[in-house]
Amino acid sequence: MAHHSEEDDIEFEASFSGKEEAGIRTRLIALQEKIREANVPVIILLCGVNGSGKNSALGILRDWLDQRQLDLHAYERQDVQKDPIEFRRYWCDTPMNGNTGIFVSSWYSDPMVSHAYGKTDDDALYKRLDECNAFEKVLADSNAIFCKLWFHKNKNDQESFLRALDDDPYEKWRVMPDDWKNCCMAEKFEATTKKIIRYTDKEYAPWFEIETGTFTERLRTAMNVICTRVETQIAALKKEKEKKNGEEKKKKDSLKKPNFVKTLDMKAALSKEEYCEMLPYLRARLNALLMEVKKRGKKVILAFEGPDASGKGGVISRLASSIFVRDCNIFPIAAPTKEEINHNYLWRFWTRLTNQKLLTVFDRTWYGRVLVERIEHFAADKEWKRAYDEINHFEKQLANGRNIVVKFLLYITKDEQMVRFKAREETDYKKWKIGSEDWRNREKWDQYDEAFDDMLTKTNTKHAPWFVVADNNKKYGRIQTMRLLCEYLEKVLDYDPADEVPPPENEKQAGKSKKNKKKKKKSA
Amino acid sequence: MAHHSEEDDIEFEASFSGKEEAGIRTRLIALQEKIREANVPVIILLCGVNGSGKNSALGILRDWLDQRQLDLHAYERQDVQKDPIEFRRYWCDTPMNGNTGIFVSSWYSDPMVSHAYGKTDDDALYKRLDECNAFEKVLADSNAIFCKLWFHKNKNDQESFLRALDDDPYEKWRVMPDDWKNCCMAEKFEATTKKIIRYTDKEYAPWFEIETGTFTERLRTAMNVICTRVETQIAALKKEKEKKNGEEKKKKDSLKKPNFVKTLDMKAALSKEEYCEMLPYLRARLNALLMEVKKRGKKVILAFEGPDASGKGGVISRLASSIFVRDCNIFPIAAPTKEEINHNYLWRFWTRLTNQKLLTVFDRTWYGRVLVERIEHFAADKEWKRAYDEINHFEKQLANGRNIVVKFLLYITKDEQMVRFKAREETDYKKWKIGSEDWRNREKWDQYDEAFDDMLTKTNTKHAPWFVVADNNKKYGRIQTMRLLCEYLEKVLDYDPADEVPPPENEKQAGKSKKNKKKKKKSA
Repeated sequence: MAHHSEEDDIEFEASFSGKEEAGIRTRLIALQEKIREANVPVIILLCGVNGSGKNSALGILRDWLDQRQLDLHAYERQDVQKDPIEFRRYWCDTPMNGNTGIFVSSWYSDPMVSHAYGKTDDDALYKRLDECNAFEKVLADSNAIFCKLWFHKNKNDQESFLRALDDDPYEKWRVMPDDWKNCCMAEKFEATTKKIIRYTDKEYAPWFEIETGTFTERLRTAMNVICTRVETQIAALKKEKEKKNGEEKKKKDSLKKPNFVKTLDMKAALSKEEYCEMLPYLRARLNALLMEVKKRGKKVILAFEGPDASGKGGVISRLASSIFVRDCNIFPIAAPTKEEINHNYLWRFWTRLTNQKLLTVFDRTWYGRVLVERIEHFAADKEWKRAYDEINHFEKQLANGRNIVVKFLLYITKDEQMVRFKAREETDYKKWKIGSEDWRNREKWDQYDEAFDDMLTKTNTKHAPWFVVADNNKKYGRIQTMRLLCEYLEKVLDYDPADEVPPPENEKQAGKSKKNKKKKKKSA
Repeated sequence: MAHHSEEDDIEFEASFSGKEEAGIRTRLIALQEKIREANVPVIILLCGVNGSGKNSALGILRDWLDQRQLDLHAYERQDVQKDPIEFRRYWCDTPMNGNTGIFVSSWYSDPMVSHAYGKTDDDALYKRLDECNAFEKVLADSNAIFCKLWFHKNKNDQESFLRALDDDPYEKWRVMPDDWKNCCMAEKFEATTKKIIRYTDKEYAPWFEIETGTFTERLRTAMNVICTRVETQIAALKKEKEKKNGEEKKKKDSLKKPNFVKTLDMKAALSKEEYCEMLPYLRARLNALLMEVKKRGKKVILAFEGPDASGKGGVISRLASSIFVRDCNIFPIAAPTKEEINHNYLWRFWTRLTNQKLLTVFDRTWYGRVLVERIEHFAADKEWKRAYDEINHFEKQLANGRNIVVKFLLYITKDEQMVRFKAREETDYKKWKIGSEDWRNREKWDQYDEAFDDMLTKTNTKHAPWFVVADNNKKYGRIQTMRLLCEYLEKVLDYDPADEVPPPENEKQAGKSKKNKKKKKKSA
């Protein structure tokens, strides 16, 4: 077995007796079985300096756990720094329900090192730790079990450990370039560590500190901490679930009257001539604006919501025709796959945002959480109510990561929906677009109205604004969406491509009168 | 509808009558239904110069097909050039069964442009086209339907089209930087095109050439070609399947006697002392060699095969302990997921090779095709027989892409397996490792021996050699594997880290005697 070190070895492997090893391994394997049964994700964080036992703990877990339910994640700090959206990588790597993800240092690594080296001050540290807390909170709220271990090692022990490695020709490869530097700066690291632990020690994601001691003692403690923490949490979750099943709730709230509809002119329409004049112009204008976005090293993310048959696909197709296909990704979002349903609801959007193109369009979005999941009770009350904050924070992260985020609600009247449903049923090549689910959703029209209203009120942020577009007339809806998007990009970029793309005559006049009522941007 | 252009527009959209549009859309939607039923992947390639109708065809397909069964892929030529393994990206993007993938230019783009610009000669062109043919062949062999369209456009038409775009303030964004250059060089492009089409026009992946004409005519032809090709192929596949079901085969071949076992010393063993002396040494040596691999901008891919309980996990764990976790990915390969089973069998290995780390280890591999799939008849005879060539080509691509590929077969005797199975059943924390499948596989021991033998004979290539290790004694197996790997890396790199990592005394003597019998590397 790898973990029985010889007496004369440098101590970086635990030497458990055969009996103790068997005990720990049996407990670990039983733990994985419990995790599978509970169907929740477990996130184990191993932090600490090199030689503190962090890597040995990782080795033991890798050898002793069933690797099929285990993901290991260790990152190069430089790679992570390159990504403008800091947590994208960690989000994509979150384990699925029933699995365990072990992360080495990860989201605490860069805040820690930057602060200890004096490159960032306390304010900057705490601001970054806020992000760590938020990340852990949203996952813990969806039942992820966190177990964060910090392996301490005092300066003297670090030094003699590094010296022993350096002296051994077969072990000196373990000494990393920065190890001696970090050892010298041990006091600074300890001070930063204290701040980090105090600030991010939360009930939903507590820290367990492993104090200096022999390797064997520390690893024994670590394994015990991991097992106890996860066992306790699983038991607590089980109890909570039973309790919840007991209370039969789902009280019917009386419906509020939606506000957003009042401001919409549902009769707005365009003639074919107006449409054909405006489309090439707006396409060119949008293209010029998107090229400017590219030039500035930014990207655009568009979110579309709206009732069934509200014309999202048609609008998106016109928008997308303003750039080459290689610059654009369109994601139609349907019911989640089995893999997706076994992750936090934001995961399937995070993963679609790797290798981002200039323009990313979501045809239905993360707002499903506060729309269909709310109305169909796929999400519990407290889950969808919490989601507004989670979504705002998600979008804020995208915006901080050099993205321009714009959201559109395309709205139609209930009567217009009926006209379109019937047309779909009667047209051979459109039949596939309509199913029993659409008719069921239609029955809940008023509930959706209310949910739209809440969504608009609670998530219309500066970094990711909503625009509501009346789409009873498809030509109007398409032109209006493109126009609003162009105006918004123009404002955000403080750039007007009018020289390159001169507006047609009619638009010039419209532009003038529009400027007088600029305030009403949110409705259309 | 987007595709009715006004009379005065530059012609880059088709103007179908309402009735014709309905006809095409109905046919396309029906086609998707057939593709889903047939459960095969469809790959549509759209090639040609800008303005030839390629992008319009793409737009139509994007608008008219059900996007949920559709993937669009357009690449920046520069991005693709950056990847040392040319086809990795295309492999990962192959559509799953029942889906359609539309690729713009893609694997023909860089060979085409390089040759037309005179940067590569005919020989280089044909060599690259060989790769295109091989890629399409392996997919077509697993029932992918190819439909490759080349949109021609003569120089005069190109020129007037570009001029018209340039003159229109709303359309000139469509002119790409290289468009005029390529137009000037139209004769060269035509000459290259002819060569490409002639060389890669295969029955399993034929070209359909769309000649100059009005946009509407060309798009009509394109849609017709796509539908006809896919419909015909689906019908042919259906017929073939029925025919196959008729012939009841599975004739029992008599078993050949395996050769590889004869050369193995199954009694080879190491004492605990020898093991404990050698492990830190080989770990340090392997580390030094891997750092040298990194310095040279290369990577290492290891493949492990062997009977159940042959000790693959233990060997891999010792190997991996020679570098930091962040430099290493270990992939245990179990039964394929639903998504994996709906792709070519190589897909799940290609996708695991994106974001490659320094060391990638596969615990069971693509050789499953010629082992378990052969023996359990999951693959038809012609499928697994074809697989040896496919695998050699797969590994060749990895090796060409700056990878060092090494394969190990860890072998134990049938008696030793029984000892280990029993130990697993009797040890609490090892019980999960053994199931009824293992016992079933054991019954087919001789068939596996024969399959191992064929595998070793047919896939022991210069760019990806096999090493067979007797692992009845785990200590010997671990040390021997690490030793063989070190020796191979030393040879390939022509680099000996002996100065940095001096061998222990015993090893020095062993090394001397070893040099005398160097030829027998393949067996151990």
